[in-house]
Amino acid sequence: MSYQALHARFKRIADLDHALSILSWDEAVMMPAGSGVVRAEAMATLAGMAHELTAAPETGELAQAAAESDLDQWQAANVARITRDWRKAQAIPADLVVALSKARSACEQAWRPARGANDWDAVADKLASLVRLTREHAAALAEVLDCDPYDALLDDYQPGFSRADIDPVFTELETVLPDLVDLALARQTPALVPSGPFPVARQEALAKALMAEIGFDFDCGRLDVSHHPFCGGAQGDTRITTRYNQDDFLESMCAALHETGHAMYQQGLPVAWRGQPVGDAGGMALHESQSLLMEMQVCRGAPFLEFAAAIIQRTILGAETSSPEWQPANLLRLATKVERGFIRVDADELTYPLHVILRYRLETALLDGGLRVADIPDAWNEAMTASLGLATGGNFRDGCMQDVHWFAGLIGYFPTYTLGAVMAAQIFRAAREAIPDLDNAIRQGRFGSLFDWLREHVHGRGSLTPARQLLVAVTGTDLGTDAFLDHLRTRYTA
Amino acid sequence: MSYQALHARFKRIADLDHALSILSWDEAVMMPAGSGVVRAEAMATLAGMAHELTAAPETGELAQAAAESDLDQWQAANVARITRDWRKAQAIPADLVVALSKARSACEQAWRPARGANDWDAVADKLASLVRLTREHAAALAEVLDCDPYDALLDDYQPGFSRADIDPVFTELETVLPDLVDLALARQTPALVPSGPFPVARQEALAKALMAEIGFDFDCGRLDVSHHPFCGGAQGDTRITTRYNQDDFLESMCAALHETGHAMYQQGLPVAWRGQPVGDAGGMALHESQSLLMEMQVCRGAPFLEFAAAIIQRTILGAETSSPEWQPANLLRLATKVERGFIRVDADELTYPLHVILRYRLETALLDGGLRVADIPDAWNEAMTASLGLATGGNFRDGCMQDVHWFAGLIGYFPTYTLGAVMAAQIFRAAREAIPDLDNAIRQGRFGSLFDWLREHVHGRGSLTPARQLLVAVTGTDLGTDAFLDHLRTRYTA
Repeated sequence: MSYQALHARFKRIADLDHALSILSWDEAVMMPAGSGVVRAEAMATLAGMAHELTAAPETGELAQAAAESDLDQWQAANVARITRDWRKAQAIPADLVVALSKARSACEQAWRPARGANDWDAVADKLASLVRLTREHAAALAEVLDCDPYDALLDDYQPGFSRADIDPVFTELETVLPDLVDLALARQTPALVPSGPFPVARQEALAKALMAEIGFDFDCGRLDVSHHPFCGGAQGDTRITTRYNQDDFLESMCAALHETGHAMYQQGLPVAWRGQPVGDAGGMALHESQSLLMEMQVCRGAPFLEFAAAIIQRTILGAETSSPEWQPANLLRLATKVERGFIRVDADELTYPLHVILRYRLETALLDGGLRVADIPDAWNEAMTASLGLATGGNFRDGCMQDVHWFAGLIGYFPTYTLGAVMAAQIFRAAREAIPDLDNAIRQGRFGSLFDWLREHVHGRGSLTPARQLLVAVTGTDLGTDAFLDHLRTRYTA
Repeated sequence: MSYQALHARFKRIADLDHALSILSWDEAVMMPAGSGVVRAEAMATLAGMAHELTAAPETGELAQAAAESDLDQWQAANVARITRDWRKAQAIPADLVVALSKARSACEQAWRPARGANDWDAVADKLASLVRLTREHAAALAEVLDCDPYDALLDDYQPGFSRADIDPVFTELETVLPDLVDLALARQTPALVPSGPFPVARQEALAKALMAEIGFDFDCGRLDVSHHPFCGGAQGDTRITTRYNQDDFLESMCAALHETGHAMYQQGLPVAWRGQPVGDAGGMALHESQSLLMEMQVCRGAPFLEFAAAIIQRTILGAETSSPEWQPANLLRLATKVERGFIRVDADELTYPLHVILRYRLETALLDGGLRVADIPDAWNEAMTASLGLATGGNFRDGCMQDVHWFAGLIGYFPTYTLGAVMAAQIFRAAREAIPDLDNAIRQGRFGSLFDWLREHVHGRGSLTPARQLLVAVTGTDLGTDAFLDHLRTRYTA
């Protein structure tokens, strides 16, 4: 009885979240520029309603009563998730929720033009206020979760991992990667660059053709365009985006394939638990492991590009070709090109973790109080120089102001990218061990065995098993860099 | 104090309505076909939340206390609207709300395939159940509004008008129009038909060019494509649609211009009262008067087509032309062609009211109990034969099954189309009397004086003045057919 009431209450919350997800997709893809204020107000109201329903005392009472009743495994996991969400939600004072929301909007809105103008001073004070409120927020969460404040923030994005898990992984990558980057740069064969322009309509057709081959369900999903590619939409209505560069069809293709990895996870979540917390994805690092498994482990690899080359030629050029720049070997060189750069979102697989680790070091220090907001530009410059040999000096735009995350109050988010990359390698290694002849299947464009396996072991489990236990169950090992570093060494330095 | 609390409560409702409007637009324009069930559930939850907030006892208490406090004119009108909405909302038993919602979904879902299959038997029982529940609904509303049950339904779409107002207008049109149609058919000069195909991209460019000339604010609005054209979106985010027929550019152009009329009303509503009932449009007949003023009074008239011809030529053909079929006189013939047909949405201005009056006669009889659902096909056949000389016999698809309205539970909606046409003529006549040289301004593509006047007298007033009083204030006369019939005689039989 109390379980049913709890279930119904979270279905209402899920319906509000459905609306918020579609409104958020619409804002990024469709909304006219002048409608932002009205939209922000409506979304704040709906988010407030969802928060009220989650944080209400009845939720805690129902969850406690439900936990004492006779539940199956999924119901029990659902109640555990709900109890945790409720404890977190009611731990944050209402005035802090409002203050944080306002500080986030103010800081993000200031950041957009300031980034273009390379104007750090225009955001520094707002960011300092936001970081101060985020520390309050983290402290309140940490008390109820009985953990480190940074770990409490991380819990919003990827439950079950802590700094104690991340630190050794990141320390090892930080130690090993710079030499690997040097070696890869020395050894890579320059790729032939196909000459464009490549019309957007053809690039879109290519993305859709490959998505369909992989198994994206267009009956319950869409591909559109946005400034930054993302996977959004609601459960049962998966919407991914890419962006088109007329001179480089691989950019839109790989972005679409990355988001297709997210989308296949979303479309594979357990339908019977749709609308309940236990039916949600198991966290953002796990989500990222699925997008990177798709993009990095599969699609930027030789077997996939051997399969895709003819489709790429026919779709982009209108016919197959024997020109060398369009052959699988050259496409592979293009798709695995390594280059040191300032911008995280443009980084290759090998340098990307160094961008993330830099941000992780700085944001943990910000939260611990060891780094002041005013000192971020210097710290950034120093860290970029050390890890990638690139000084950012007064170039804030391509330095500490390049990502929206901190300016939107997202601290604790960055490590999920590299945790995802590490888990992707572990999970794909397990898949190759479990699935006979997987490389050959991919070479022939047969993705069924891979996704059958992923649905059984990862997608279809929702949040039933916490991500870390899931990783152990699927791969037989805990979080570790072996598979990832093996993959990188094989691909880039062999 | 109670006024402020009431205001805040209705801002929450408006934010839910914002979400519902965008979700509904998305459903018609963007949503993948397989996502309908999830979407319907989410929208039902949000609609239920809005209904709960409206119908709650606190709403009535706040409204009563607010009504006794010191209010300005707008606040007082807002409280009066809210009080009426609350009385209506709390008059409907919760189980009837649920039963109606289910019956509507079931009937509409059955109708979609049944219409294509011309299968009346597949929907007759579901429609009978829905009509029975709608009669219950009407009876409950009629009690609280102290009026005729049909008038109670009409009040949802256009407050302030009743059967007593509609009957004499419709009776006169029904008497006069058949002869006018005969005369128009006898006198019209056949138009030259420009030969297509006309690429969709050019038709879209034409629609957008004309919308921009008229003053549609693309910074807070969009034009897209849907199966049936509509004006939707939320306040501050106006979204209209059209549809493209490669063989007939006038179809998409006129649909876009019709919706632009709705959009100009929506974009002209009082910003200070956005999110409050008094800031909403004054009803659907008044809304239709604005779309028909735009499409029928302005855009299908000679001055507008003299202005638009060059734009049409440049956008559709790529250059201006002296070919006779592209000249204003021929475009006017195309835009004012009269033809008797089965389908309401394809009907011209002259026969359209006959389609509406037929539906009005049948739906009032359905509600009064004088017509049984089983007898609709015969009654339809008889009425169509009498008014337009077209027998529908066993052709349900192009007869009584052509419109979604009844199958979606919308009884009381149809008369607003023709009330809108009648009011459009009255309001446009008043505009021409008030604005010096309006025809010439239109001929030169200057729409500022028309919209300044409409914003002052109609758009900017929201729901402050009830539609009927507004009509009297603007035109100096009550609802009547003079201006409409004059317009029709001048355009079609002079």
